Amino acid sequence: MKIANLRDVAPTQELPGVLKREVITASDGAPNFCMRVFDIDPGVSTHSHSHSWEHEVFILTGRGVAVSGEKKTPIKKDSVIFVPPDEHHYFTNTGKTTMRFICLIPNSAKYSSCSIGG
Amino acid sequence: MKIANLRDVAPTQELPGVLKREVITASDGAPNFCMRVFDIDPGVSTHSHSHSWEHEVFILTGRGVAVSGEKKTPIKKDSVIFVPPDEHHYFTNTGKTTMRFICLIPNSAKYSSCSIGG
Repeated sequence: MKIANLRDVAPTQELPGVLKREVITASDGAPNFCMRVFDIDPGVSTHSHSHSWEHEVFILTGRGVAVSGEKKTPIKKDSVIFVPPDEHHYFTNTGKTTMRFICLIPNSAKYSSCSIGG
Repeated sequence: MKIANLRDVAPTQELPGVLKREVITASDGAPNFCMRVFDIDPGVSTHSHSHSWEHEVFILTGRGVAVSGEKKTPIKKDSVIFVPPDEHHYFTNTGKTTMRFICLIPNSAKYSSCSIGG
């Protein structure tokens, strides 16, 4: 069993105003999927993209919008978001404080150091 | 994209004092893993068991202990816990308020309605 506190995991800068903490990864022995925590500064958006793997997201703090194509949906603390494979998406912090969320991806994703192969 | 708020997902009673909300499941189209949120009453523990699938856990509120065999480790808001496959484990709320956590499992788990097959 690995137990850590979020504050003890060093962040990397994913984009200007976007910090990423990889808290459970394949290198911990996670066999199927990995957990990351993102901090988004006010006014900042995540990558606008699509890819072949899913996201499972839980908003921890703050508020913003989840965007899929032309559709924008408000999100806030306790929002749950499932982004299916190949669906365009991004998230924008529309509030005045950090928007923090958990985002999980499968190990098969070719994007992240969470991935065994990527 | 599925977007919901945690409060809008009906809970089921997993055990006395343990509520479970299945917020992202195979029935949403999740291809690899599913997300559940548990509320543990003060003094209550989750199942003491082991199984062939992993857990990836994030503590949202409250405090308690994570137990693996004879080892007990304090956990609280922002704790991250990876339980490898086949490791004995349970979680106890040792605080005075609800301990709420996210717990993800692979779809292959034969335990939950999160599973396609189980």
